[in-house]
Amino acid sequence: MSGQDGETLDGIRRRIDALDDEIMRLISERADCAQEVARIKRAADARAEFYRPEREAQVLRRIQAANPGPLNSEEMARLFREIMSACLALEQQLSIAFLGPEGTFTQAAALKHFGHSVNTVPMNAIDEVFREVESGSAHYGVVPVENSTEGVVTHTLDRFMQSPLSICGEVELRIHHHLLSTADALSRVERIYSHQQSLAQCREWLDARLPQAERLSVSSNADAARRASREPGAAAIASEAAAELYGLNVLAANIEDSPDNTTRFLVIGPRSSGPSGNDKTSLLVSARNRPGSLHGLLSPFADNDVSLTRIESRPSHCVNWEYVFFMDIEGHAQDAHVAKALAELKQEAELVKVLGSYPKAVL
Amino acid sequence: MSGQDGETLDGIRRRIDALDDEIMRLISERADCAQEVARIKRAADARAEFYRPEREAQVLRRIQAANPGPLNSEEMARLFREIMSACLALEQQLSIAFLGPEGTFTQAAALKHFGHSVNTVPMNAIDEVFREVESGSAHYGVVPVENSTEGVVTHTLDRFMQSPLSICGEVELRIHHHLLSTADALSRVERIYSHQQSLAQCREWLDARLPQAERLSVSSNADAARRASREPGAAAIASEAAAELYGLNVLAANIEDSPDNTTRFLVIGPRSSGPSGNDKTSLLVSARNRPGSLHGLLSPFADNDVSLTRIESRPSHCVNWEYVFFMDIEGHAQDAHVAKALAELKQEAELVKVLGSYPKAVL
Repeated sequence: MSGQDGETLDGIRRRIDALDDEIMRLISERADCAQEVARIKRAADARAEFYRPEREAQVLRRIQAANPGPLNSEEMARLFREIMSACLALEQQLSIAFLGPEGTFTQAAALKHFGHSVNTVPMNAIDEVFREVESGSAHYGVVPVENSTEGVVTHTLDRFMQSPLSICGEVELRIHHHLLSTADALSRVERIYSHQQSLAQCREWLDARLPQAERLSVSSNADAARRASREPGAAAIASEAAAELYGLNVLAANIEDSPDNTTRFLVIGPRSSGPSGNDKTSLLVSARNRPGSLHGLLSPFADNDVSLTRIESRPSHCVNWEYVFFMDIEGHAQDAHVAKALAELKQEAELVKVLGSYPKAVL
Repeated sequence: MSGQDGETLDGIRRRIDALDDEIMRLISERADCAQEVARIKRAADARAEFYRPEREAQVLRRIQAANPGPLNSEEMARLFREIMSACLALEQQLSIAFLGPEGTFTQAAALKHFGHSVNTVPMNAIDEVFREVESGSAHYGVVPVENSTEGVVTHTLDRFMQSPLSICGEVELRIHHHLLSTADALSRVERIYSHQQSLAQCREWLDARLPQAERLSVSSNADAARRASREPGAAAIASEAAAELYGLNVLAANIEDSPDNTTRFLVIGPRSSGPSGNDKTSLLVSARNRPGSLHGLLSPFADNDVSLTRIESRPSHCVNWEYVFFMDIEGHAQDAHVAKALAELKQEAELVKVLGSYPKAVL
């Protein structure tokens, strides 16, 4: 290293050290403020809540809107989530149940949402995540609910029918799929293994590029990669990590049909979130068994200018109703036009259960 | 919430918003500086290294020494690791191979050391981690090497005998063990399952409190917890997370014999680290097969005031040598007194291989 460069580098390193001192001072001051907030809340209410999803969403949105770069907004939001996570842990050590095992997308979603200063506790089934939060053993739970290409995780929706829990947040993760094989060309691929959901998420690509190859669904993408590593002529749809792990070639990257292939997760807890200014509300609505009932259910939204972003019908397991519907609408149940639409909906429907209002996912 | 408190809370939230703006501005300026460092390095050397373990260790030590609270030093260091991780990822996306599967302590060690802006890639065996880094498929690897109670992971040490890789860092994780059971009292425990290493780490506690209980080693602590959840009279030594997962009572917490029960991991890469001011050096030394040879190997350290912190003998698999020794000494191979000791050691030993000099773990 030349003397000139050496001095320049040393100079920049001294600047970085000075910046670090200042960053630390400000983070510490922020943590002091968080303790002060907690003290005030505790004085007003011994059972006060310290985790406020709407406030966190507002902070992250503000940060992302003002981020000057060079870090991208996702990275900057990630750093602020960790700072908030560390500050919150001073007040309350949160325990988060998730659909395990460790290392799944659901755990990644839980850590993305809550930061790494929480305890994440793996559960064997979606039902156990609900029970863990219902019993108070965990403060919050994280469960998968929807894949942007493949639709809903019905077990999660069904479980809401019998649960007193509310939705207090949503998390979205971007998911990429790759075609992996020991073969070195697409033309050699005779068989494709993957989880059925991943096969479905890449259907168009497979139809266009590998129409002749047999598609076989297996229990997980890791299992698919293992098979592909052993069988000549076999390929797997799996992650980049699986390619490395099983020594497979990436024959084609990012083969998911939707470029925005995300998986959506719900954060469940004892109560829903306050208004953040950019919210969603999830509803469970039972319809009377008569012609035109669906139309009647939807008009309160149209009449009050409330956007319906998703509707999903499920058998109700109850003799009096034909169906229940899960609906997502834009806005918070406390917003005036949403409140009016919900009031009108209650006139039309057998039952309207607000599963929760919560801030839209911050990517 | 009273008006008075509401105003106070609003005031503090505005202070937090102002702090966040300033923190973001400084983090962005820090990222600009990191880009500038990279630009200068690239101009000087097209194959320049951007990850500098010694510099990161220095930054973290400085931060921990100056941390004013209320966040503890571990949390503050964690936040700065993430900030450095995000800044480094602007220059180079690091890929880190680790002994898998996902969710293991080794992955936790890798993420603790490198922050979350890297790709971590699980490998099936220690040998594969080495091969992945040797082939250049991963930039660095993380492997377990030592447990403070139970001693070394011999396979990792043995692998260094044939590897050109260097040690460029170490990571320490604190590990706690709990006694879990469906039983509600210690007196009901007849059998204890755990991984043999965990059993060994709690031996004194078990001897004192449960001398009559049978001890059975199983493949993992998770397996132990599963058995304990099914067999009346059985207990497991496992983590708090396992207690939650298998619905077991924590009959006794933190039963590890050493209050500082840590597991140590090595970061391996193509070259060792520069001096950070507080370093360790790991050596592989082969002894001539003659009486007094060990004494001869150790005197260069004593003569030059170099502390030997660990020595471990291993069969050499080579006819000419009786043993090889793995040694850890304090200081960097470039420190004058260490360099002198190593030069003298080379006169005494058949072979001296410096496995690496690297910053001591920052907890």
